Amino acid sequence: MKKILIATTALVATAGMAAADIQLNGSARFGVVYKDAKGSATKATTGLNTRYNLDIVGSTETDSGITFGTKIRIRSDGSETAQPASAPNGAEFTMASSGLKLALGNTSGAIDSMSNLYANEIGLTTFVGMYSGHGLSYQGYNSIGADITPGVSVKYAVGDFGVMASSHKAGTETYNALNASYTFSGWTVALGVQDVSDSVAANKAAADAKDLTALSVGGTVGSFGVTGLITNTKAGTGIGLGASYEISAATKINAVVSSYDPSASGAKNTTAYGIGVSHDLGGATLKAGIGQDAAETTIADLGVSFSF
Amino acid sequence: MKKILIATTALVATAGMAAADIQLNGSARFGVVYKDAKGSATKATTGLNTRYNLDIVGSTETDSGITFGTKIRIRSDGSETAQPASAPNGAEFTMASSGLKLALGNTSGAIDSMSNLYANEIGLTTFVGMYSGHGLSYQGYNSIGADITPGVSVKYAVGDFGVMASSHKAGTETYNALNASYTFSGWTVALGVQDVSDSVAANKAAADAKDLTALSVGGTVGSFGVTGLITNTKAGTGIGLGASYEISAATKINAVVSSYDPSASGAKNTTAYGIGVSHDLGGATLKAGIGQDAAETTIADLGVSFSF
Amino acid sequence: MKKILIATTALVATAGMAAADIQLNGSARFGVVYKDAKGSATKATTGLNTRYNLDIVGSTETDSGITFGTKIRIRSDGSETAQPASAPNGAEFTMASSGLKLALGNTSGAIDSMSNLYANEIGLTTFVGMYSGHGLSYQGYNSIGADITPGVSVKYAVGDFGVMASSHKAGTETYNALNASYTFSGWTVALGVQDVSDSVAANKAAADAKDLTALSVGGTVGSFGVTGLITNTKAGTGIGLGASYEISAATKINAVVSSYDPSASGAKNTTAYGIGVSHDLGGATLKAGIGQDAAETTIADLGVSFSF
Repeated sequence: MKKILIATTALVATAGMAAADIQLNGSARFGVVYKDAKGSATKATTGLNTRYNLDIVGSTETDSGITFGTKIRIRSDGSETAQPASAPNGAEFTMASSGLKLALGNTSGAIDSMSNLYANEIGLTTFVGMYSGHGLSYQGYNSIGADITPGVSVKYAVGDFGVMASSHKAGTETYNALNASYTFSGWTVALGVQDVSDSVAANKAAADAKDLTALSVGGTVGSFGVTGLITNTKAGTGIGLGASYEISAATKINAVVSSYDPSASGAKNTTAYGIGVSHDLGGATLKAGIGQDAAETTIADLGVSFSF
Repeated sequence: MKKILIATTALVATAGMAAADIQLNGSARFGVVYKDAKGSATKATTGLNTRYNLDIVGSTETDSGITFGTKIRIRSDGSETAQPASAPNGAEFTMASSGLKLALGNTSGAIDSMSNLYANEIGLTTFVGMYSGHGLSYQGYNSIGADITPGVSVKYAVGDFGVMASSHKAGTETYNALNASYTFSGWTVALGVQDVSDSVAANKAAADAKDLTALSVGGTVGSFGVTGLITNTKAGTGIGLGASYEISAATKINAVVSSYDPSASGAKNTTAYGIGVSHDLGGATLKAGIGQDAAETTIADLGVSFSF
Repeated sequence: MKKILIATTALVATAGMAAADIQLNGSARFGVVYKDAKGSATKATTGLNTRYNLDIVGSTETDSGITFGTKIRIRSDGSETAQPASAPNGAEFTMASSGLKLALGNTSGAIDSMSNLYANEIGLTTFVGMYSGHGLSYQGYNSIGADITPGVSVKYAVGDFGVMASSHKAGTETYNALNASYTFSGWTVALGVQDVSDSVAANKAAADAKDLTALSVGGTVGSFGVTGLITNTKAGTGIGLGASYEISAATKINAVVSSYDPSASGAKNTTAYGIGVSHDLGGATLKAGIGQDAAETTIADLGVSFSF
């Protein structure tokens, strides 16, 4: 006998009765990716790319209005030579009340959570973004396997203003990060700062090299969506720009360009760029992109993504 | 608080509202298996056999009627000495519309998908079938762990006629297979052809040895169900016959015999056979079987299987 | 699109229609644990403790009233340095009818299932119990990973009387256990006996050392809940006492003390004890405890647990 989970819209009549619930949120994509590395030594390749993702989200709300929650994820990224098995990843634990949200376990840091950081990524596989080539190292959510860099974060939002602070352990390193964001007239500006330290004195230089500052912005100009990113580390400065445009109700194009200027004298600037298109099939989305990453590899992809 | 997934029949009122859904389809079995290998060197053994299987099936339908889908499986096969843990296996991805179905990732090939190939398998653990001893090698669905032989298949059905083509990579080998089936007057005939090649020239003979042709048939004669199979490889020819009979509304018996004739001169023919019974408990099924496999091991099993 | 599993209470109207179902029962906890080992050689530590637990329970009922069931568990226990990934564990299989219940696969034994054995454990992480320091070895349910000590058990309950017998394989060892319980006037008394044998003759002494007898009792005296435990092995005798008291409708305190008297002459008695408090937030529970285990390590913990 088959069990079907009902879509949310069907539950209006009963939603008020369920204080504790479990949501299953799935998504998947498959398509082909073309890569042609710089120089003639390596042959261009065309390969299959698949992704399966299922989030199991549990939550409960106390009488006083605190929401406790958990999330585990089952993700499998495949190719034409293997479709891996995937144990549920390390869990995330959350506690939220009145604009304040605490998260711990497998949870992302304040840099990874900056608004617009990943805006206007290109294509089915999001192979180029405004950050490409900037050489940033920060703590994110770990989608596959154990999380050996767990952390804790606190987020607070009041009106148009938001702040988030996070701290993650990665072996002997500690990543402390902070972001602040402000939204006005449809534009959102966010500033992120990260400080990395290492309990082993000999590793101080390597840790300091991960200190970073980032500024992101996103909004609309007429019928264009526009995003920008500036990042800075000891090693250099990066700038990214992105734009999107709705050709029709179902079709959207976007473009991104990222430039990185290393501070070392003699080191060359790098540039990454791409242009993408997505077409809504009404339940699934066709996506394609073409561009070049910071290592001057030409990449193109085409496929379909959908949620369930 | 407990969450119960409602059985499909309870959802008639809301089914039209859910374009995207997730189904959980579970099954399990447990019982005992007796094995007595040919010759007196090895003692006969009796052991516990368990299987847990949960399929998580996600799907969504576009406005234009294309259905995209995914499947992952959690399976654990146990014995009296271990009940293994089991990570969700490699995912399957599907896209279907108007009789055409594309599948990729962890997906079965055209030989494995032939109608009646597995018909009339014996007992709780399906230890003997029409194919037993035929020495066939083809690509199936991988229920446990990573799929390191992923593939792609296309299936097309129109009226009583169906075709399926598949291609799988297994290291340096490529398995290409095709099947065609036709149903008439309650009988289904299917023809399958497989060609295996290897990108390493030295492995050509080993790959060619996996080339195969198979013909299956299934239908009814009075109150008997009857199935047949003929297979051919360079190494020999196999023939299988199966039959089933409903003793009562709840009780069914079936039998199978398989004979294999190696083409090498001097090599002996092998025979496998078995007889089984299943009794429907109205929600679970008692199953038992006894027989002998192609290696002349006597096997008997008895147990219960159920779905949830 | 999001899928929400409806809480049981919303299903009254349809429950009669679902003979086969799947339940998802989740729970989680997070908090901090302080440990200070005896002696000054080791520094006291304070660490993060998290647990994620999701049970996937499938069941079906036959027309004749037999209920078949399965359970798999996804559990991840984390700290400030890692939040592990976790494949579903080995499955448990059950069959129940009219007070008789058969379980096999990853299933707990008759000692582990004794009533009140784990009563009045202390704190968020249940770090001390009535059994602490008794040095008992018996077969339980294996929450994480493969179960390499699977077993079989039979439980029978009639009125106020219950018995359970179990047998588990652990390599060359066999754990056979039995418990019997009786409930009268709000008190439950249970007796458990375990016999361990080893198929390797040289291991007989080690197996015999695991033979044990246990007697537990639990009930209420006025507004106090009271529990007791006596255990005996060749190595010694243990006694445990526990009590709980409801300060208010939402707040409960409990305490436990365990004493162990080794039979070897000259060996010292050990004592473990603790006191805990839990406060119901109406959907989540605050828990805290402080105590000392049998190795004289001082432990304190504090955190929150919730179900979903």
